[in-house]
Amino acid sequence: MMSSPRTPVPAPGGSTDDLASFSVLVRDFNAVRQTSIALCDPLEPEDFVVQSMPDASPVKWHLAHTTWFFEEFILSAFVPGYRVYHPQFSYLFNSYYNAVGQRLSRSQRGLITRPTVQEVFDYRMAVDQRMNEFLGGAEPDLIQRMVSLLTLGLNHEQQHQELLLTDVKHALWHNPLHPVFKHRNAEPVESALPMRWLAYPEGVRWVGFEGEGFAYDNEGPRHREFVDGFRIASRPVTNGEYLEFIEDGGYSRPDAWLSDGWSTVQSQGWDAPLYWERQGDQWWTFSLAGMQPVNLAEPVCHVSYYEADAFARWSGARLPTEAEWETAADVSITGNFLESSRYHPTPAVAGTDIEPLQIFGDVWEWTASAYLPYPGFQPASGAVGEYNGKFMCNQHVLRGGSCASPRGHLRPTYRNFFYADARWQFSGIRLAQSL
Amino acid sequence: MMSSPRTPVPAPGGSTDDLASFSVLVRDFNAVRQTSIALCDPLEPEDFVVQSMPDASPVKWHLAHTTWFFEEFILSAFVPGYRVYHPQFSYLFNSYYNAVGQRLSRSQRGLITRPTVQEVFDYRMAVDQRMNEFLGGAEPDLIQRMVSLLTLGLNHEQQHQELLLTDVKHALWHNPLHPVFKHRNAEPVESALPMRWLAYPEGVRWVGFEGEGFAYDNEGPRHREFVDGFRIASRPVTNGEYLEFIEDGGYSRPDAWLSDGWSTVQSQGWDAPLYWERQGDQWWTFSLAGMQPVNLAEPVCHVSYYEADAFARWSGARLPTEAEWETAADVSITGNFLESSRYHPTPAVAGTDIEPLQIFGDVWEWTASAYLPYPGFQPASGAVGEYNGKFMCNQHVLRGGSCASPRGHLRPTYRNFFYADARWQFSGIRLAQSL
Amino acid sequence: MMSSPRTPVPAPGGSTDDLASFSVLVRDFNAVRQTSIALCDPLEPEDFVVQSMPDASPVKWHLAHTTWFFEEFILSAFVPGYRVYHPQFSYLFNSYYNAVGQRLSRSQRGLITRPTVQEVFDYRMAVDQRMNEFLGGAEPDLIQRMVSLLTLGLNHEQQHQELLLTDVKHALWHNPLHPVFKHRNAEPVESALPMRWLAYPEGVRWVGFEGEGFAYDNEGPRHREFVDGFRIASRPVTNGEYLEFIEDGGYSRPDAWLSDGWSTVQSQGWDAPLYWERQGDQWWTFSLAGMQPVNLAEPVCHVSYYEADAFARWSGARLPTEAEWETAADVSITGNFLESSRYHPTPAVAGTDIEPLQIFGDVWEWTASAYLPYPGFQPASGAVGEYNGKFMCNQHVLRGGSCASPRGHLRPTYRNFFYADARWQFSGIRLAQSL
Amino acid sequence: MMSSPRTPVPAPGGSTDDLASFSVLVRDFNAVRQTSIALCDPLEPEDFVVQSMPDASPVKWHLAHTTWFFEEFILSAFVPGYRVYHPQFSYLFNSYYNAVGQRLSRSQRGLITRPTVQEVFDYRMAVDQRMNEFLGGAEPDLIQRMVSLLTLGLNHEQQHQELLLTDVKHALWHNPLHPVFKHRNAEPVESALPMRWLAYPEGVRWVGFEGEGFAYDNEGPRHREFVDGFRIASRPVTNGEYLEFIEDGGYSRPDAWLSDGWSTVQSQGWDAPLYWERQGDQWWTFSLAGMQPVNLAEPVCHVSYYEADAFARWSGARLPTEAEWETAADVSITGNFLESSRYHPTPAVAGTDIEPLQIFGDVWEWTASAYLPYPGFQPASGAVGEYNGKFMCNQHVLRGGSCASPRGHLRPTYRNFFYADARWQFSGIRLAQSL
Repeated sequence: MMSSPRTPVPAPGGSTDDLASFSVLVRDFNAVRQTSIALCDPLEPEDFVVQSMPDASPVKWHLAHTTWFFEEFILSAFVPGYRVYHPQFSYLFNSYYNAVGQRLSRSQRGLITRPTVQEVFDYRMAVDQRMNEFLGGAEPDLIQRMVSLLTLGLNHEQQHQELLLTDVKHALWHNPLHPVFKHRNAEPVESALPMRWLAYPEGVRWVGFEGEGFAYDNEGPRHREFVDGFRIASRPVTNGEYLEFIEDGGYSRPDAWLSDGWSTVQSQGWDAPLYWERQGDQWWTFSLAGMQPVNLAEPVCHVSYYEADAFARWSGARLPTEAEWETAADVSITGNFLESSRYHPTPAVAGTDIEPLQIFGDVWEWTASAYLPYPGFQPASGAVGEYNGKFMCNQHVLRGGSCASPRGHLRPTYRNFFYADARWQFSGIRLAQSL
Repeated sequence: MMSSPRTPVPAPGGSTDDLASFSVLVRDFNAVRQTSIALCDPLEPEDFVVQSMPDASPVKWHLAHTTWFFEEFILSAFVPGYRVYHPQFSYLFNSYYNAVGQRLSRSQRGLITRPTVQEVFDYRMAVDQRMNEFLGGAEPDLIQRMVSLLTLGLNHEQQHQELLLTDVKHALWHNPLHPVFKHRNAEPVESALPMRWLAYPEGVRWVGFEGEGFAYDNEGPRHREFVDGFRIASRPVTNGEYLEFIEDGGYSRPDAWLSDGWSTVQSQGWDAPLYWERQGDQWWTFSLAGMQPVNLAEPVCHVSYYEADAFARWSGARLPTEAEWETAADVSITGNFLESSRYHPTPAVAGTDIEPLQIFGDVWEWTASAYLPYPGFQPASGAVGEYNGKFMCNQHVLRGGSCASPRGHLRPTYRNFFYADARWQFSGIRLAQSL
Repeated sequence: MMSSPRTPVPAPGGSTDDLASFSVLVRDFNAVRQTSIALCDPLEPEDFVVQSMPDASPVKWHLAHTTWFFEEFILSAFVPGYRVYHPQFSYLFNSYYNAVGQRLSRSQRGLITRPTVQEVFDYRMAVDQRMNEFLGGAEPDLIQRMVSLLTLGLNHEQQHQELLLTDVKHALWHNPLHPVFKHRNAEPVESALPMRWLAYPEGVRWVGFEGEGFAYDNEGPRHREFVDGFRIASRPVTNGEYLEFIEDGGYSRPDAWLSDGWSTVQSQGWDAPLYWERQGDQWWTFSLAGMQPVNLAEPVCHVSYYEADAFARWSGARLPTEAEWETAADVSITGNFLESSRYHPTPAVAGTDIEPLQIFGDVWEWTASAYLPYPGFQPASGAVGEYNGKFMCNQHVLRGGSCASPRGHLRPTYRNFFYADARWQFSGIRLAQSL
Repeated sequence: MMSSPRTPVPAPGGSTDDLASFSVLVRDFNAVRQTSIALCDPLEPEDFVVQSMPDASPVKWHLAHTTWFFEEFILSAFVPGYRVYHPQFSYLFNSYYNAVGQRLSRSQRGLITRPTVQEVFDYRMAVDQRMNEFLGGAEPDLIQRMVSLLTLGLNHEQQHQELLLTDVKHALWHNPLHPVFKHRNAEPVESALPMRWLAYPEGVRWVGFEGEGFAYDNEGPRHREFVDGFRIASRPVTNGEYLEFIEDGGYSRPDAWLSDGWSTVQSQGWDAPLYWERQGDQWWTFSLAGMQPVNLAEPVCHVSYYEADAFARWSGARLPTEAEWETAADVSITGNFLESSRYHPTPAVAGTDIEPLQIFGDVWEWTASAYLPYPGFQPASGAVGEYNGKFMCNQHVLRGGSCASPRGHLRPTYRNFFYADARWQFSGIRLAQSL
């Protein structure tokens, strides 16, 4: 899952360690830290505590865990004589770094009422203050040594901002009062653009990250793949299209499904995407703005890999591979991100964007590719890299980011990954076909 | 479990409906309501939310559920035109009254962050105000009709006061910081009084409640049982005695255990009472005053029926039956109750009490009796009595109350009941033998 | 469960150890052993292997386990220099005697294909031959020492004869071909006798076994109980009566059920007794004679305690206690037993039997009594008695035997016991009421 | 899993439908059918019944299911007026063809004692006789239409021959008597050949099947992949090498494992390959020849993907991808197969084979590739092809066949697949490295 930290590709040459770029990084640090706090504005103390399923974490935990990361990997590592803020916070807020010591069982995070929310905020403030003191006085060679960890910490916190939103959404959904996290204006468009196919010829293509700037280690090495000719949809699948699948008996015909998918449909009783609820003739969906009628023009969201795959098969298409997706995603990164504060996908709008539309933002797009290492992948050494590759089994890759991803966190080479039955992320569908 | 409401035996004659006794009842109402609030003094808002296991409930839920009881069975039933405080609170805070409508799944109570703690306190205040208005102006015939429900509501809330404490204890125990709910002074006595046997001859004995005042329906009808001669211990089993059982390999010898008990020991990995933890050579136990060394003179506590039974067998004795216990409990109700604010059992003290010592308070005492209806038992009709007998299967009776029971809530005939593997109540052991 | 061995009450005086009665016992030994083999006549080798649930055992295991009992407790114990037939049979065919060594996990008995059925028959023959040699030459003092174990072994094997039938029935039921174990002629009676109430006054009554002959230790000590006045039904509840409960929505109204019973109904999806299957308008039931229409005049069978209790509540009655049942069962032991080779209950017949009708045979009758030790109960010492009391928790007592019980195995004081959700025994319902 | 049927690549041109090649096919049919029967020679009737886990099937079921395949897809489809042998055998012995009707729950196959083993043999003989009658008289155009299904049926039965052996091995292993299926002579070699690296340059390579003869649909389409330079081990990993991993604490160091692998190690308590058992200082392993000391020179076997991956990481290498493996497997198909009747891997022998040694036979080799469709893959239509792609999720590909695979069943392009935690197949490890 996204909560794994990944080491950055080592900064090549001296570009990141000059003082100008470092002061940008310090400003970014404070901005990212502030964004996490701002996201919590609508919450009451009680909302910070709950964990609605083992895959999710309490908001309080997200806030403390991201803070612990800076304390552990920057302050403890680089500040001589640094004393930790609280001797047991490492146990409580470490996630899975076995090299850093014991940790609380993941499924019990929601039972921990202390430290209180206020105490966690105090913890954040104290660490931020120490970080600013430390960063303000750091010498160039120290900067050189820690800049990649600091950058990693910021990206790590951005990941948790998205998880914080998806986890809060999942928790509030259990409440029959359907609390509203943030009101949202009605979507501007009510009918979907037609879908078009965009074609790409066969050839050897370069896939993966290389160059300056940050990327997770799982995005490299950049390497060649032979890609047969394919075409890809100009926009994601909409709620309206998905509703046709439902109404055609999609959830009751085993031939549309992978074997494991059909088992899951039956054991979980799925008959629609997560958060959908039928009331009479109308489908509603729970969003961070409360219960809303399903807007047929919006990209379908909160579907599992199994549902994405079944829909694609039913519609005579398939999901794109990572290489195909990355080939098509050679466009600028614009779209509906965390910064829009809608926290919900929006319909594609004609004429304003370059195609493929909405390939960044709105919904993560399931690919047909299993999450596996690229050729020549080498995990980093030490605690932060201890587990870089350890999730590379039994999961599928998603690409492109969502309405809950910070804009600056994304890249065309970015690889997100979840189990095939996961639905609580903002995950949707883009179709592809072989030529 | 204790959370079941039970209808009172109808008040015989006119003694409860005169105004003097009714004004006592109103005073009791306000006192009981106030006690629930006072118990929460040490808690932070976050502490009110969590549910550490399906058998436990969040503090917030206890406070709201007991309030809902008065709103549903007094205000809605007797106040013309009464409008409920919130239309969904019945769904959220009803426990298991199927006749009163749908209810939230018990295991999901800990996911409900709204209403907030403050909103629940507001709910309590609003209902209390309406209750006082209503009670203050009630006519005698209305009093007559509602007095038994009001009395039931007070007893119901007292039950939940004890559960609130045991559930908070269980939740805080999961926190590696071991939060202290309330500091407690050291126990006055460090060595246990010797245990003596008190003998009772055979004979037909009357068992169960009859007479004036409140009792749950499961305490009657009063009936005859033939009781063979027996003897009963002068005080509960102590931690020191239980430690001998542990050190004699009690948890690793199947011959000491009931078959179901041995399965539970193995599947749960039990090797001591709940909350015990060995650190080097010393046993510690988690209490509402935090981690404390095990005091060998105290009554052993937080043992299951299986452990109580195994200890008794190991020691050459057995547990008393309900009839034996009730025969021996023909003494005044004194002891260590909720009102002591210790929330922990204390060692027996020589010479100050009548024997059997500590038969009320300190620890609930497992009996050998399964929880079954008394001869001639008839469940009450209507919603409050809907399920009076429905728990009479697969559970065992405990008697005498604990350090977390309100003093005024107890009677010699009071029947508490839990499954044989339950350990989070203040449950202990008193031995018996056949003559 | 019935598979527990229990020690006999020690033979009082010299009556069992004289040679005449001992030769009867030897004849009984050979007859009981032969009966087990005869019961298997309809079976193919494949049928001996399967275990359809953890509570059941393969036929092959029953045959070998009962043999192992004689080998372990008679031959190994009393024959100097006896060498066991196979060194690992004790491991394979011991049931739960921890004092006798390790044993195979109960749930894996169905995975053991070797020894083959033929090899188990060879084992039986070899042990029977050694037993006859040994018994034929035993001296009086040796007879005196082993007679109670031999008697226990015969009763133990009779228990397993009933279990063999119920376990085979459960296994064959899973086969969509519905194999017929033994054809059965149509029942002679198609309409039920009217049910009458038989009344008994209050009083102190003697309950439990005392006297000559064999009884399990759990049937004693004989003791006094005060029994309020009651009445009991003249015959068991019929399929026709139970069908009224079903058609009145019995399985969909929570108010009829114990709380644990209602949970079981929902989690297991029960809507009728075990083995019932609706085809159009007709109910059918699987029996050892294959699928048959439900005969409305027969005693209802294969119901759990939960269903027996719910039916009784729905019908305005209750189940009898053990003491009540034993008071009413003071009649001769006649009825439909194993020896009839019907292996199915039959309708009550007018005028031929003394009332209460069918109190022995046909169906085991659930009592309202939890399975608990009688006052003064002491488990026997040593391996055979190691676990006499260890099942005395969480189970309910059934009385009277069934159509699968050997006639000579039953007594008015006989206590059978199963968990409240067990349905694969021939278990039915007799109603009672308080006067 | 291997039990899936897959449609053949359509026979290109007229080569398979001439009468000479068809008579070969008929001879193959009878030979394959006979091989299944011969494999069962060592078994007793009881051995045919059991199912030791949901992933395995009873021997009886394998024999009947492969027969049903010919009855359903040849006789019922092509013989006018054919009447099925038994109306319920389709229900009992269909595996997962939803288009062909209901089927028995997979996990209950071991409860079905009837039809007996003899009746299943009769069923096989009857179908074989009808098949031979039908094939003997078939006209060329009919041959043309059915030849691919007949070929599929033979390959399907060959798959089940391997499963029959692995399932019997797993079942017998549960028996503490450790039955011997077939005695085996000692291995000829006791010390392993040194492992060498074989290097291959980068380039675009063709992967997958194309051409004449049979292949499963998942082996195509033949397509291009860009493969970076790599090297591959000259022989599989041996028991001796794997033992070093164990002795280096391999099973207790989380850093060696995938996250899901480590969870499985802990929840399953793995500390060695399946069937290994330590007795004092010696490791033993259960084989179809009974318990044997672990031979350090043999290829390690019965390891999961998790173990293969962890071993590779620990040793500084990795597993090969499918494309790499197929590149290296461009050698003739020789080795230790089913036909050797050893049913166990043997040590590599110097100088007798071309390298890479043992790339066919002995042990299936886990690849790093997830089981996914090749570019342009299209599932066949109709019942046999209904689910060709439905297992393409959450599994990993194994290559090369094993000591239990029929020699004629294998190809360089053959793709076998199992879940990452599966261990009961003859699955081993071949290492690779990036250049």
